[in-house]
Amino acid sequence: MSNSLRLTVPDGVPFIDFEREFDYPVADVFRAHADPALVAQWLGPRGTNIEIDHYDFRTGGSYLYHHTGPDGVSYAFSGIFHTVRKDDFALQTFEFGGYPDVVSMEFLTFEDLGGGRSRLRAHCVYPSLEARDGMASSGMESGLSEGYERLEELLASTAKASEGATL
Amino acid sequence: MSNSLRLTVPDGVPFIDFEREFDYPVADVFRAHADPALVAQWLGPRGTNIEIDHYDFRTGGSYLYHHTGPDGVSYAFSGIFHTVRKDDFALQTFEFGGYPDVVSMEFLTFEDLGGGRSRLRAHCVYPSLEARDGMASSGMESGLSEGYERLEELLASTAKASEGATL
Repeated sequence: MSNSLRLTVPDGVPFIDFEREFDYPVADVFRAHADPALVAQWLGPRGTNIEIDHYDFRTGGSYLYHHTGPDGVSYAFSGIFHTVRKDDFALQTFEFGGYPDVVSMEFLTFEDLGGGRSRLRAHCVYPSLEARDGMASSGMESGLSEGYERLEELLASTAKASEGATL
Repeated sequence: MSNSLRLTVPDGVPFIDFEREFDYPVADVFRAHADPALVAQWLGPRGTNIEIDHYDFRTGGSYLYHHTGPDGVSYAFSGIFHTVRKDDFALQTFEFGGYPDVVSMEFLTFEDLGGGRSRLRAHCVYPSLEARDGMASSGMESGLSEGYERLEELLASTAKASEGATL
């Protein structure tokens, strides 16, 4: 439970900050963000289907994907990777198709905690307090929580498969 | 004088907003932002030299340029164009090489005012109040003022050249 998501919505400034620890090395957590075939297996809450149009996790790359929820409604998300540094840092823009031009930035820091553990920290920056408040009340916290649980499960199954392979 | 820059640094939120009118059509002002050969003639304060590494003003494009001031010191500026819509809107990230990873967003709106006039509005979003305050006290206002005066002079000389051509 110590790995649970801690999300902060500070008063008066258009930010959302969160962090999450993982019982996996930073390289594994980074790779789960870098490889679209892995991203497709964890990004978003449980019960959603993701269809990745493109996802080019490198400095200057861009992404577009669609999430379809249990109700069959589909949402587009797109942005650009301003900076990507392996096992260290990523900065991307983020736009939800339902609110065109209301674009935010996500600063993601990947930290090695030693002992095969790591921490992900995020600083999200919105163009207005209203946009931030809208995002905070959109189910972002539960969506992120479930997504990172899925990421952990994915890393667990990958690790298990590797162990199996060495038997 | 009615065309002078109006810049606002609001209390407590990490934004800088500014607007500037031009006695030129929106298409001209947009083109001065879109064509790197024109950008090189006005972007930055007087007395600076700009060297454009690349400047690809389209959705998903990126830019990198260096400004060299009268003291010979060179500064890198880089970012990515999240959105570009002709004669209407551009959203870009902005990073000054002196403060790596302190990236901001600039929302630029190009408005047709009729009668051959136009307005440029900008909403700049910083990842912290400290970053915003640092930018506001860096000579941004005078740099922008002089840059847009140069842009206006450039459009004046272009218009004059066109008139000459039709004689």
